[in-house]
Amino acid sequence: MTVTGPQGFRAAGVAAGIKASGALDLTLVVNDGPLDAAAGVFTRNVIKAAPVLWSQEVLKQGKLKAVVLNSGGANAATGPGGFQDTHATAEKVAELLDTGAIGVAVCSTGLIGERLPMAALLSGVDSAVKALDTTPGAGLAAAEGVLTTDSKPKEAFARHGNGWSVGGFAKGAGMLAPNLATMLSVLTTDAVVDKETLDRALRAATHVTFDRLDVDGGTSTNDTVLVLASGASGVEPSEAELTELLATVSHDLVQQLRADSEGATKDVDITVRGAASEADAISVARTIAEDNLVKTAFFGSDPNWGRIAMALGRAPARLDPETLSITINGATLFAAGTTAEDRSAADLSGRAIDVVVDLGVGASAATIYTTDLSHGYVEENSAYSS
Amino acid sequence: MTVTGPQGFRAAGVAAGIKASGALDLTLVVNDGPLDAAAGVFTRNVIKAAPVLWSQEVLKQGKLKAVVLNSGGANAATGPGGFQDTHATAEKVAELLDTGAIGVAVCSTGLIGERLPMAALLSGVDSAVKALDTTPGAGLAAAEGVLTTDSKPKEAFARHGNGWSVGGFAKGAGMLAPNLATMLSVLTTDAVVDKETLDRALRAATHVTFDRLDVDGGTSTNDTVLVLASGASGVEPSEAELTELLATVSHDLVQQLRADSEGATKDVDITVRGAASEADAISVARTIAEDNLVKTAFFGSDPNWGRIAMALGRAPARLDPETLSITINGATLFAAGTTAEDRSAADLSGRAIDVVVDLGVGASAATIYTTDLSHGYVEENSAYSS
Repeated sequence: MTVTGPQGFRAAGVAAGIKASGALDLTLVVNDGPLDAAAGVFTRNVIKAAPVLWSQEVLKQGKLKAVVLNSGGANAATGPGGFQDTHATAEKVAELLDTGAIGVAVCSTGLIGERLPMAALLSGVDSAVKALDTTPGAGLAAAEGVLTTDSKPKEAFARHGNGWSVGGFAKGAGMLAPNLATMLSVLTTDAVVDKETLDRALRAATHVTFDRLDVDGGTSTNDTVLVLASGASGVEPSEAELTELLATVSHDLVQQLRADSEGATKDVDITVRGAASEADAISVARTIAEDNLVKTAFFGSDPNWGRIAMALGRAPARLDPETLSITINGATLFAAGTTAEDRSAADLSGRAIDVVVDLGVGASAATIYTTDLSHGYVEENSAYSS
Repeated sequence: MTVTGPQGFRAAGVAAGIKASGALDLTLVVNDGPLDAAAGVFTRNVIKAAPVLWSQEVLKQGKLKAVVLNSGGANAATGPGGFQDTHATAEKVAELLDTGAIGVAVCSTGLIGERLPMAALLSGVDSAVKALDTTPGAGLAAAEGVLTTDSKPKEAFARHGNGWSVGGFAKGAGMLAPNLATMLSVLTTDAVVDKETLDRALRAATHVTFDRLDVDGGTSTNDTVLVLASGASGVEPSEAELTELLATVSHDLVQQLRADSEGATKDVDITVRGAASEADAISVARTIAEDNLVKTAFFGSDPNWGRIAMALGRAPARLDPETLSITINGATLFAAGTTAEDRSAADLSGRAIDVVVDLGVGASAATIYTTDLSHGYVEENSAYSS
C-alpha cells in the first residue's frame, strides 16, 4: 500500500536512466489535498547534500504539493552546481503540476561527490508525472525508485479505527550504509492536521523509531524523513493518535531497513534501562551498538558479555559497575560487579538477539536497533565504489 | 633490548601454565635502582580490571620496585575475589624481592570475566624471580610473556647522546582488540629523574603516541602504560629531553602495535590540521578513524573521500564545508565544497595510507594512527571466545 494507501495521494516510480542498470531510479509523490500540510526531519551531519539544503528551506512554510526522489546519485559535496540541479528538478516538477517550486521537496541517494545526469533526470520527471496513480502498484513502484543496495522495497501501512491512515516507504542506506547516502523515507496520511501538529507528531515518532536505528554509527549527508498530510479522510485525530500511528508505520519500516541492511545476519535490540536519563540510556545503548568487537561477537553467535561491559564503560553516562547487570536473550551473565549465569545459558543461534543492560542508577530506558558486523558488510563496503 | 636496555633493570618471562598452550604467560620487571621513581597512565574505562585498580593505588606514591604482568586472563569484572588475586600476586612478588607489596604494580591481559588460576600464577612468580636477568634475551622473554593474539613481541629502545636511555615493550590488544583486554606497555629508563617530572613526561609522551592509536574505538578495562626509572646512568636529562625520548620509544611501539593489529592490511595515518583546537583535531581524526565505511573503503584500496566527508561531518568540532579539504596520499580530492582532483589520482595500492584533512578554520593539528577493517578482523573477533 505504501504512500498511496491513505486517500488523496498519487505516486509513480520510473526508470529515468540515472542508474546504468536500467532499474527504477526516479520517484514522485503528489498530495492532491484538500490539505497540503507537511513536515520533515533531516540529517544532523554538517555536510548536507544539496537536496537536503533545498528541502529544509521549502519545509519552513510547512506545506508541500509533491516530493521528487532519485536514486543513482546523492548530489552531495557537489557545490553550487549541485544545488542548481536540485532547484531545476523542483522547478520542472512544479511546472508540470502547475504549482510553485517552493511546494516541491527533493531527495537524492547514491554516491557522494558526483553530479547528476540532469537531462535523464528531467526527462524522467516527465514520465513520472504521466505515470502518477493512486494504485498499490504505483505506490510499490515509488518505493522501488529510491532503492540503492537494498535487496527489496520497504513499505508500511496502518489504518486507524476512525477511518484515517498512515502509509510510507523507506530505503535502507542511511545509517545502515551512509556512503550510498542515504536513509530516505516518505510518509503520507489522510488525517486532517495542521502543520504545527504534524511537525510535532513527526518529531516524536521519529525520535523513537528512525533515530533509534544504528547499524554502523554513520549519519549520512542526505538522511530525510518527510510526511505529507492530505486531509482527504475528513477525520481529525488527536496529536497523540497521530503520533502513535506515525510511530507504528515508522517502526515497521525501521525493522525492514534493519533486516535488509548490508551483510546483517542478526537483528540486535540493545535496551538500556535503569538509566539516570533518557539521554544516558540512548548514549550507552548506542556505544554498545557501534562497538565492532560486540558486533563481531554477535556475528559469531557468541554471548561475549565482557565486550559489552568494555563498550558501555566508555559511554559518557552515569555508570556504577556494582549496580549494573547484562542480560542476553534472557540470561543474566553479569551482575553486582562479577560473573553471574554461565555464558552458555544465552542461546544466540537464532537471528534475534535481545540485550538488556540495567544500569541500576535511575528510571529511564531506551532501545537501539542494530545488527552484527559480518563478512558480508566488509565485502559490500570494500567493493562498492571502485 | 626492550626493558633491559637501560641500566639497572632485570626482567624475565616464563610459562606459568596460565595459558593452556604452554606459551610464555608471566612477565616480571625489576628496578634495581639506585632510584625507584615510577609513573603510570591507565584506561579511562569506567569498568576497570582489578590490576588497574591496584596499580593506580600503588602508583600514588610515585615509586615501584617491580611490575608483574600476566597474559591468559584479564582479571576484569571478577569482583572482590579478583581484587584479592591481584593483591596476592603483588604480595608474592614483594616477599621474594624482600620489599613491600605497595612497591609492586600488577597488569593482566586476556579474556574478561574469568578468575585467574592462582596456584599456577604464584608458582610462575617463583620461576620468574629465579629467571631474572639483565640480558637482551631476558628482555625479549619479558616482551613475549604478555602477548595474546599478537603475532610477535614489540620491543623498542633509544639512547640519548648524553649516556642515558629508554627501553620498553608493549602488547597489542588495547584499543586494537580490547576484548582480550588490553594494551599493556612497560617502559624503563636509567635517567636520574624525580617522580613528578617522570609523571609529567610520561603523560606528555603518551598524549601524542599511545593515546593516538585507534584501531576500533575500544578502550579496554586493562589499558596500562608504566614507566620505571632506575637512575643507574647517573645522568639527569631535562624534562623536555626525557619527554622526547619517551615519546620516541612509545611512537616506535605504537607503530609496531598498529602493524600487528588484528586483520590489518593498511597502516592509515589520519592527520587533521587547520582545526580550531587540538581537541577538535583529535575529535575529527578519531571520528574518521572509527568509521566502518571509511575503514572498509581502505581495505578495498578505494580513495572514497565521500565517506570521509560523511564521517567528519558528524564530529563534534568546528567545521565549515566551504573551507575544508581532503587529501589522500598526496591527491586533493575535495576542496571548496566540491570535487577537486579525480579520485584516480590517489593511489592506495600500497600498505601506507596518508589522509590529511585541512579544516581551514584554525591552526591546530593532530594525527590518529589507525588501520583498515578487513575480513581478517571480522574472522578473528567473531571466532575468538567460543
